[in-house]
Amino acid sequence: MAIGRETIENMLKLSNPKWKTSVTRVEPNRIITRGYPQEDIIGNLSFPEMVYLLIKGEIPSKNESNMLEAILISFCDHSVTPPSTQAARLMASAGSPMHACVSGGLLAFGKNHAGAIERAMKTFQEGIKRSKDNIETVALEIINKSLEKGNKIPGFGHRYHTEDPRAPKLIELAKKCGCSGIHTELALTIQSILLEKKGIRMNIDGANGAILSDMGFDWSIGTGVFMIGRLPAIIAHVHEEKTREEPFRKLFDIEEIYYDGVDEKKSIDKKEK
Amino acid sequence: MAIGRETIENMLKLSNPKWKTSVTRVEPNRIITRGYPQEDIIGNLSFPEMVYLLIKGEIPSKNESNMLEAILISFCDHSVTPPSTQAARLMASAGSPMHACVSGGLLAFGKNHAGAIERAMKTFQEGIKRSKDNIETVALEIINKSLEKGNKIPGFGHRYHTEDPRAPKLIELAKKCGCSGIHTELALTIQSILLEKKGIRMNIDGANGAILSDMGFDWSIGTGVFMIGRLPAIIAHVHEEKTREEPFRKLFDIEEIYYDGVDEKKSIDKKEK
Amino acid sequence: MAIGRETIENMLKLSNPKWKTSVTRVEPNRIITRGYPQEDIIGNLSFPEMVYLLIKGEIPSKNESNMLEAILISFCDHSVTPPSTQAARLMASAGSPMHACVSGGLLAFGKNHAGAIERAMKTFQEGIKRSKDNIETVALEIINKSLEKGNKIPGFGHRYHTEDPRAPKLIELAKKCGCSGIHTELALTIQSILLEKKGIRMNIDGANGAILSDMGFDWSIGTGVFMIGRLPAIIAHVHEEKTREEPFRKLFDIEEIYYDGVDEKKSIDKKEK
Amino acid sequence: MAIGRETIENMLKLSNPKWKTSVTRVEPNRIITRGYPQEDIIGNLSFPEMVYLLIKGEIPSKNESNMLEAILISFCDHSVTPPSTQAARLMASAGSPMHACVSGGLLAFGKNHAGAIERAMKTFQEGIKRSKDNIETVALEIINKSLEKGNKIPGFGHRYHTEDPRAPKLIELAKKCGCSGIHTELALTIQSILLEKKGIRMNIDGANGAILSDMGFDWSIGTGVFMIGRLPAIIAHVHEEKTREEPFRKLFDIEEIYYDGVDEKKSIDKKEK
Repeated sequence: MAIGRETIENMLKLSNPKWKTSVTRVEPNRIITRGYPQEDIIGNLSFPEMVYLLIKGEIPSKNESNMLEAILISFCDHSVTPPSTQAARLMASAGSPMHACVSGGLLAFGKNHAGAIERAMKTFQEGIKRSKDNIETVALEIINKSLEKGNKIPGFGHRYHTEDPRAPKLIELAKKCGCSGIHTELALTIQSILLEKKGIRMNIDGANGAILSDMGFDWSIGTGVFMIGRLPAIIAHVHEEKTREEPFRKLFDIEEIYYDGVDEKKSIDKKEK
Repeated sequence: MAIGRETIENMLKLSNPKWKTSVTRVEPNRIITRGYPQEDIIGNLSFPEMVYLLIKGEIPSKNESNMLEAILISFCDHSVTPPSTQAARLMASAGSPMHACVSGGLLAFGKNHAGAIERAMKTFQEGIKRSKDNIETVALEIINKSLEKGNKIPGFGHRYHTEDPRAPKLIELAKKCGCSGIHTELALTIQSILLEKKGIRMNIDGANGAILSDMGFDWSIGTGVFMIGRLPAIIAHVHEEKTREEPFRKLFDIEEIYYDGVDEKKSIDKKEK
Repeated sequence: MAIGRETIENMLKLSNPKWKTSVTRVEPNRIITRGYPQEDIIGNLSFPEMVYLLIKGEIPSKNESNMLEAILISFCDHSVTPPSTQAARLMASAGSPMHACVSGGLLAFGKNHAGAIERAMKTFQEGIKRSKDNIETVALEIINKSLEKGNKIPGFGHRYHTEDPRAPKLIELAKKCGCSGIHTELALTIQSILLEKKGIRMNIDGANGAILSDMGFDWSIGTGVFMIGRLPAIIAHVHEEKTREEPFRKLFDIEEIYYDGVDEKKSIDKKEK
Repeated sequence: MAIGRETIENMLKLSNPKWKTSVTRVEPNRIITRGYPQEDIIGNLSFPEMVYLLIKGEIPSKNESNMLEAILISFCDHSVTPPSTQAARLMASAGSPMHACVSGGLLAFGKNHAGAIERAMKTFQEGIKRSKDNIETVALEIINKSLEKGNKIPGFGHRYHTEDPRAPKLIELAKKCGCSGIHTELALTIQSILLEKKGIRMNIDGANGAILSDMGFDWSIGTGVFMIGRLPAIIAHVHEEKTREEPFRKLFDIEEIYYDGVDEKKSIDKKEK
């Protein structure tokens, strides 16, 4: 039996779900990303321009590119204090290969570690959506709502630094690059109220979250930007662990563990039911 | 244009690479694993029988099943001393969801942490392949080769225990279940030489590696068996971290980090070239 | 200067945050889990008893243990249809080691894939908390609330099966083991309404979620139980991929990708600003 | 009892293993990476300069920085053909959060997928160590050794492209930037022999592997550089999946699975022993 091409194509459409993407078209000897052949991109775009192109689909202006570069670099490293770096080094010490250690490090980017930037962006973006006209009212609403619930305001305060040295530098650059707008204004207003009331300053997540919001990034991409900035350091730490430390080292000694479960039992008790 | 069904099917065969599997057949309202409908398996097989069926394709004898159950349970937990448990709890503290914390824990099953059982199995299996007749010669070869290279013999000695309490219990059960054979004999021979020479005893990996080898498991499945046995504890630890500890706690204090890189620089030096 | 031991110990307490756990106490040559020395547990507890002990801190009754064993086994495998199995096999094909492939598989246990059991448990547990007396009212509330929002009711319906063969078998066993209570009653009530109205039946997540709730498991542990049950199959699939397939195989052909992004551009356009 | 401070410090040294790092020093309000305060780095270093500084400990020359930027960008994306991108999108479809999807993507960077660059670098670096004087002899040795074993030569040939458009562009830039040396010469020599004999050309891994070797990067860091370059695309793909596709979509239809295990069995057969 012969059947029509159209029928077949419809059958295929139903039974063969396809991958669909707008990022890159691959053909034999042709790789075109967001409309640009990769051989034209290589050597002509900077890394932050590439990041912007991949995520937002267009090439940024020079100022936007400089700002994004500064943001990425500001996330570069915080030594072995974050759980992500610790986890990556634990895995390296356990003998996992580089790619698995890096994956493990990024797995620790949970909401308590890397979530602050997204929460800060969401707070700023929702605040500005509520009102563009009265920034001070919005700032007070955000602060009071958090204080009532006993929550920290995402993007303000830091467990190691009373004055995070990265934040003012980023704000300064944002102004210089013309990337500072209403979200940054909101963040600065929150800071001046908090500083007076509680002595608390903006941290790196607050600064970057505000600037990225002013650059038009949706809050859901915040952790992604953080990961791009931090990845080289995780690789450097895994490399350092693999080349400078002995394998499977005793990072925690047995004495540091405090057992607070039940006392030793004399025999196996199975529940009767 | 009309084209023949057969032509189309041949085209599809070429252009649509298929997944192939011998583990489970899925049809609407029918799920058949290794030949058995799952509604017959549920309630009729024990968990170790299921593990054996999935990995080896057949249902084990009662003795093999009992032995595999004891092996799985012997891996149950070693508190927060292993990097896998530490990594999983770090991720839980960082706010990652349960499935990501568990994945992160297993990512730390690198060759230095979980690799000992596979190396022990490989050592025993290759030793027995070289000679079944003179176990003592094989044992001495294995020991001497390791001592020459300054390596530990996988499956012997433990960083916390001089006498790993799990190993003799497992060997005793293997004998009772008829699961102890020539590989276990080799492991015991190595132990008696090492004990006399160095005061070193078999550990859990040596015991389980020998018994699994006698049960016909290839060494490449060793880490897999360890993971099945350890998974419930990783889940219990993640649950404990999430329910009993405050989020993002300071597991490492800043004082515990020793920086040994270059001193602070006054200005940015770019290389000239 | 000499300082007192107590002072030192207090200093240490402050500056050295400790790990705390109630799961296992480790001392040289002694490993005590939930109060039981591991050498007593090995050979005396079944795997489901161990799972129960680790997660809930006590040894279950024989009936509870049998029920938990059936639940774990019911999750055993669903061939290569789930994203977790596909992801694990992709990584195996890419040449990652066993432990990384397994981790990758579990990483796909996101809310759309493995979340149904936790959502089902939460729905049942919250429903019963609202009212124990009028199950039918609670069932109708749950159904109507979902229908209004256009949501599926978690634990009912299946993308491959109109009658999930595992669900009735599990319910039957729960009754036999005395593990079926008010949550199971609620699930069955929802099913009979849905079946009449929509022809939709309970699936494996609905059945296990109801039974686990009746056994006193909090909904937050649901994905954990699923992972324990599924892990052996993921290992079997990774092993099958590594031993039966050629490396880096073309699971997706280039023809199956549909690019729907912008057309090729002639030159690099940077935004002016 | 009073004890001396020195004794205490020695005790602590033994019982409290510390983290040690040369990457970054963190003090309150001071973060110094590789000797540079981060507030000086932000806005003054480009992203590739930062990557170089983190991994190699010094700031590169302008030419080295431009070359590294081109290398990073050349890895930007290859659509949904690689297992890493597929795995990340599968996890996104399964409902895992961004950081878990990205981790899962990188987990697929196994030796068959991302290993080629490290193998290429190792081949070039070991070849040049054997002899710097006769590149042609080294090239022939490498080719013949691979052909004898039936192996591919890492860095040459591509499953989608007969002429990888990225490779010649990278080589051209390396010459322009003065980053092309003896390793690149070796790679080009291998290419001209292979092209004549087999019609096979250098691919992106061959080009980048040779240039990175000439820039003094050890082969063990190759996958790390690839991951930094690819990460933004993985984030873009996860974002695309989460925002443009429906959740848990049927990427594989049930018809595409071929079951080739045992036939259905009538009853549960347990082995007798």
